Amino acid sequence: MTRKPDFTVSCPLPVADYPEITMAHGGGGKLTQELVEKIFVRVFDNPELSRRHDGAVLAFDGARVAFTTDTYVVQPIEFPGGDIGTLAVNGTVNDLAMCGAVPSYLSAGFVIEEGFSIERLWRIACSIREAADRAGVTIVTGDTKVVDHGKGDGLFINTAGVGAVADGVDIGPHRVSPGDAVIVSGDLGRHGIAVMSVREGLQFETSIESDSAPLGEPVASLLSSSADVHCMRDLTRGGLAAPLIEIAEVAGVEIGIRERSIPVGDAVRGACEILGLDPLYVANEGRFVCFVAPRDADRALAALRSHAQARDAVQIGTVESSGRGLVKLDTGLGPARVVDMPSGEQLPRIC
Amino acid sequence: MTRKPDFTVSCPLPVADYPEITMAHGGGGKLTQELVEKIFVRVFDNPELSRRHDGAVLAFDGARVAFTTDTYVVQPIEFPGGDIGTLAVNGTVNDLAMCGAVPSYLSAGFVIEEGFSIERLWRIACSIREAADRAGVTIVTGDTKVVDHGKGDGLFINTAGVGAVADGVDIGPHRVSPGDAVIVSGDLGRHGIAVMSVREGLQFETSIESDSAPLGEPVASLLSSSADVHCMRDLTRGGLAAPLIEIAEVAGVEIGIRERSIPVGDAVRGACEILGLDPLYVANEGRFVCFVAPRDADRALAALRSHAQARDAVQIGTVESSGRGLVKLDTGLGPARVVDMPSGEQLPRIC
Repeated sequence: MTRKPDFTVSCPLPVADYPEITMAHGGGGKLTQELVEKIFVRVFDNPELSRRHDGAVLAFDGARVAFTTDTYVVQPIEFPGGDIGTLAVNGTVNDLAMCGAVPSYLSAGFVIEEGFSIERLWRIACSIREAADRAGVTIVTGDTKVVDHGKGDGLFINTAGVGAVADGVDIGPHRVSPGDAVIVSGDLGRHGIAVMSVREGLQFETSIESDSAPLGEPVASLLSSSADVHCMRDLTRGGLAAPLIEIAEVAGVEIGIRERSIPVGDAVRGACEILGLDPLYVANEGRFVCFVAPRDADRALAALRSHAQARDAVQIGTVESSGRGLVKLDTGLGPARVVDMPSGEQLPRIC
Repeated sequence: MTRKPDFTVSCPLPVADYPEITMAHGGGGKLTQELVEKIFVRVFDNPELSRRHDGAVLAFDGARVAFTTDTYVVQPIEFPGGDIGTLAVNGTVNDLAMCGAVPSYLSAGFVIEEGFSIERLWRIACSIREAADRAGVTIVTGDTKVVDHGKGDGLFINTAGVGAVADGVDIGPHRVSPGDAVIVSGDLGRHGIAVMSVREGLQFETSIESDSAPLGEPVASLLSSSADVHCMRDLTRGGLAAPLIEIAEVAGVEIGIRERSIPVGDAVRGACEILGLDPLYVANEGRFVCFVAPRDADRALAALRSHAQARDAVQIGTVESSGRGLVKLDTGLGPARVVDMPSGEQLPRIC
């Protein structure tokens, strides 16, 4: 009755190198990419998954519906500027927005550790509701599971999301072409530093709050600005570096970015120096990068800057040529250097 | 910018009774129901969630799309007749089928504990693919997170699912009415006993395998049989008892079932006696109950029995009257007894 798939023969990962999952497999960098590509994309093998976008766009009776999911395992679960509930809403809303969809409905699946405080769960449920109201989405279905004390970590939340994609919208790495302007929607690194500061017990002169926020509105303005938007990607656990490299590889293009154009606040820059981190690799939860046709850069920037969430949007570079998929950083000091995929070990469980 | 919801004032659960989450809050019984209703349904507050169905049915540009989610935390993650991957596909496929949808697309979100074997992950990915092929669905989007050793339990998997609902299909507890025939699709309790037998290291004379299976095909036959199907519900962690009671409460009806009609295999019955379990409360993963208009019971049974998955379908009772929502069991010995909601403590982490 069931056809045994051919791929069950053997596991293709170099088991000798990594026989077991390491924290870096979840860091959004090189090892995450390897795990996803060599196991999940290969075994599940279908065109939607192979596009390596933030979600799938599905056809239903003439309607086009975007569908996406993320699980949130951030530690600590409450941090300056948000909590695991805020992330669980905004993260999935933003993945829908990156597909060019109008974020509309979310599911919520809770994995709660035995002994977790019911008042704290209530507080996080309220925070989910607040974030959902702000993003204009409704939690329409859900699930609750409990695991034994010592077999979880307080609370994990999965959200999946669906939203309609308008006719004619076609967003994805496949559309990125030489000449495209590369724009980021605001300053980088605040989410990662906000979470790390609590985890490491660090105090900075200025308090740094997570940038966690829904991106539906600035994206809607961008799409209705008549700028030709080729690709969008929200910047999460791999910082700016990982998604740029992934897009460069999938699209087969060389992307050039200028270090001096990349917006990083003084407080985040200072914290990165203390912690030995590069802001290019630090996580965000309310920022995205977009690729627009060369002639439309100013129009796109104007549309984005009309929203509080993207008022500091700025062009940071250009798609320079087709060819080898890579990202080059012009530091202003000597020749441009190739940006490496993060190892994924620096900032575990940041979302 | 953000309206602070009124309900943030205080947590409505009797915190004095349960200040913390217990294993029973995840058992699918009384405490799960209380947690879901008093926290999630109340805080998220919307008509779709209040229907308390297995999923939401959403309108997109003329198309109707069912949307549902479940997280799987079963322990052990491999057991006779399946593994966590089989469950993660079939469970969500079945929730879509219960909405009257054609199961089509799934997401998959993995929470992997540091140190988990990569070969084992590969094996489970293959098992997901096999189950997806069998159920006719595609895994179109996903997410991978890693948590520290000792902060997870090997592997948790969330799946969400979407599928189209045909015009005119209206399935849910709101349609259950006096006179409806109550039908179950096959023998009960195999999944719960299969998992418990591994967990407790029990050997039975006959090996008992999980009934985990996709229900899309028998449901499609049922819906195209022209029987008027009012409600369907797959029988999972609360056994037969919990969903029947929940439907009786939401619909405001009294349901009568006959103990002698409820199909339970000899091996499961024997195992239940040894373990001190009531088959009414034991988990299933490939069985469902349906409510059909009185005149259509035979037609529904014939449609179901044409599939291997439901060849033992049988009517087990009737919706007797409107009024207090409760379920009565005719044991054949003296007056019928009221079926209690399971406490949820008996069979933790069964799915």
